[in-house]
Amino acid sequence: LLITLTTDFGPSSPYVAAMKGVILSLNPRAQIVEITHAVPPQDVRHGAIVLEEITPWFPPETIHVAVVDPGVGSSRKIIYARIGPSHFLAPDNGLLSRLARPAHPSTIIHITKADYWLPQVSATFHGRDILAPVAAHLSLGVPPEMLGEPLSELVTLDWVEVIVARGKIEGVIESIDSFGNLISNITADQLADAPRGEETVIECDEHQTQGIFATYSDQPEMTLVALVGSSGKLELAIVGDSAKIMLGVKVGTPISVRWPAG
Amino acid sequence: LLITLTTDFGPSSPYVAAMKGVILSLNPRAQIVEITHAVPPQDVRHGAIVLEEITPWFPPETIHVAVVDPGVGSSRKIIYARIGPSHFLAPDNGLLSRLARPAHPSTIIHITKADYWLPQVSATFHGRDILAPVAAHLSLGVPPEMLGEPLSELVTLDWVEVIVARGKIEGVIESIDSFGNLISNITADQLADAPRGEETVIECDEHQTQGIFATYSDQPEMTLVALVGSSGKLELAIVGDSAKIMLGVKVGTPISVRWPAG
Amino acid sequence: LLITLTTDFGPSSPYVAAMKGVILSLNPRAQIVEITHAVPPQDVRHGAIVLEEITPWFPPETIHVAVVDPGVGSSRKIIYARIGPSHFLAPDNGLLSRLARPAHPSTIIHITKADYWLPQVSATFHGRDILAPVAAHLSLGVPPEMLGEPLSELVTLDWVEVIVARGKIEGVIESIDSFGNLISNITADQLADAPRGEETVIECDEHQTQGIFATYSDQPEMTLVALVGSSGKLELAIVGDSAKIMLGVKVGTPISVRWPAG
Repeated sequence: LLITLTTDFGPSSPYVAAMKGVILSLNPRAQIVEITHAVPPQDVRHGAIVLEEITPWFPPETIHVAVVDPGVGSSRKIIYARIGPSHFLAPDNGLLSRLARPAHPSTIIHITKADYWLPQVSATFHGRDILAPVAAHLSLGVPPEMLGEPLSELVTLDWVEVIVARGKIEGVIESIDSFGNLISNITADQLADAPRGEETVIECDEHQTQGIFATYSDQPEMTLVALVGSSGKLELAIVGDSAKIMLGVKVGTPISVRWPAG
Repeated sequence: LLITLTTDFGPSSPYVAAMKGVILSLNPRAQIVEITHAVPPQDVRHGAIVLEEITPWFPPETIHVAVVDPGVGSSRKIIYARIGPSHFLAPDNGLLSRLARPAHPSTIIHITKADYWLPQVSATFHGRDILAPVAAHLSLGVPPEMLGEPLSELVTLDWVEVIVARGKIEGVIESIDSFGNLISNITADQLADAPRGEETVIECDEHQTQGIFATYSDQPEMTLVALVGSSGKLELAIVGDSAKIMLGVKVGTPISVRWPAG
Repeated sequence: LLITLTTDFGPSSPYVAAMKGVILSLNPRAQIVEITHAVPPQDVRHGAIVLEEITPWFPPETIHVAVVDPGVGSSRKIIYARIGPSHFLAPDNGLLSRLARPAHPSTIIHITKADYWLPQVSATFHGRDILAPVAAHLSLGVPPEMLGEPLSELVTLDWVEVIVARGKIEGVIESIDSFGNLISNITADQLADAPRGEETVIECDEHQTQGIFATYSDQPEMTLVALVGSSGKLELAIVGDSAKIMLGVKVGTPISVRWPAG
């Protein structure tokens, strides 16, 4: 069975390898795939967006393990959640709250049964000592119900909602990818009524562009372009360069789309 | 069957994981190996050199997927090529042009058959939506000929050729590795006539060194050394430090080797 | 069988992929796991600490390959060592000297038998040309004794020993993790007599904190905290930030723990 890892440990961190070693010691046949370890340190919101965007591309029944855990060792819970066709293991700090917005988990378990943990649990690395062995046991067929007590709700975080009005949509930049593209929370569905032509004006900070394009390559180098990106969200890109660096825009900056609504 | 990935998405990019998820959803038994995701963004030439240097170390019949794709969404083709004993999937933008120099592909296919793609293809991420599922289908035994129409030629790029004369060889720095070593396009074969001793002078920018050594460790710390590196090319290294940082030399800088030819 | 890789090649280096290609060409069923490629270039001491900390989490009989090799091409040996239940392949430059402190290797072999190497061995990349193929052959069942001649000792490095006295323990910062936490060489065992409360004073450079805590989350943001970390060693952390950046402390800086001993 497939197990994925999403953490804020940094690319090529040996801590990730310790988790893999623990998993493979319990289940040598586990197939482990890394989603990313480049979540900014302790940035639970960023981790939540990555999980929402990437985990749906994996096969059903995949076990997704996420460790972005500023509260490790505090009273925050560690949980199992079944969301859609997949299994999730994470600290209960909002990390699963994006995935759980459209589809409430069908099962949530507060992980308390130490039988499935390492014999010694450190105070600071529950990823290795609790989450990794629990994932291995799940992959070996242990039913989630054996892991602890049922819960009815996950911890959630406040997420800025997109405002859709007549001739106007308002959202925020929610993430920035490694190319420097600025990715908003405005979805293709929400943009359905916006014309694609020059009459539509996209504004973000003091920057402005007209029209929503299909691809980067429609425009000359160094042009600011708005398009619906691969995650199905409105994004801003500088053709052939980094919009992040060129525009200095940060996560959380408002972005608006306006057009003359007759 | 083995599938490799080479991209410019950045180390630990979640976009890579989306490609892996798509492949494993179609073929759960696929074995995926990452070559690198640290090709500089949109640097097709760098990607071409990496593919030329690394893919020959993999077993025959490996399926190599490469995504460095500044023209995504434009009219550039996506292609399959059989080069030597291996399979390649890439945008047709020159990314395979180094591999195809010594050995013209025995088969080239313009990938047009959408049956082997994801049902929905975004305008900006063909790596996930076209290349990943096509690789998975190939690994499941779909014959390359089913993927689209035959082509006779790949897109090529201009590459600076090494000039070999009597007592003199001229080339360029083509890549820089993570140790800061400056790697030229001059091969061991081309250097066959150059003496290894002090009479041979290597020049690059305003920097100069004498002799071609066997290993870094022959010289004291902080010395500039010329040697034939692990890729079989002439390279410049600073013993125990980074030649890139110490010398400020960039890709494309000319390098020459001269010796008294009697 | 499981093969791990630990190198200083840098995250996402294509050199790592060349090693994987060589291994998979010889043993297509080998399962390869990366420990880290972010050992600072040529920092043998850092590599030794990573191996000591991470390899014990892997299953018995795992083949651990380590390449931090400033002396590549010199007369330094390449060795096989059986340490505890695991196999190690590395240059004999001290890289295994931390693992070998508590448990002297039961077998050490100087790798000299070229039958198990690539046919052509470069002067500068023994990781690919010697260590990778030897690891593949081991995973296929070649007995270690076939690889070369027995040795009685490994090369060792000087490591600063912790001084434990009445009411006082003195050590050094030995590594810094990706969160910027400063990890010392003082173990939980050595700290057994130190009280956890405010009477215990931890000093490092001009910085000072009182008490040894169980977790980061016991203290307010931006506080300097001392705790026993996930590696079982005393570490200094800034809650919610990087102690490395905030304090400017480097590897090798002394750290002391003092308390009133009645």
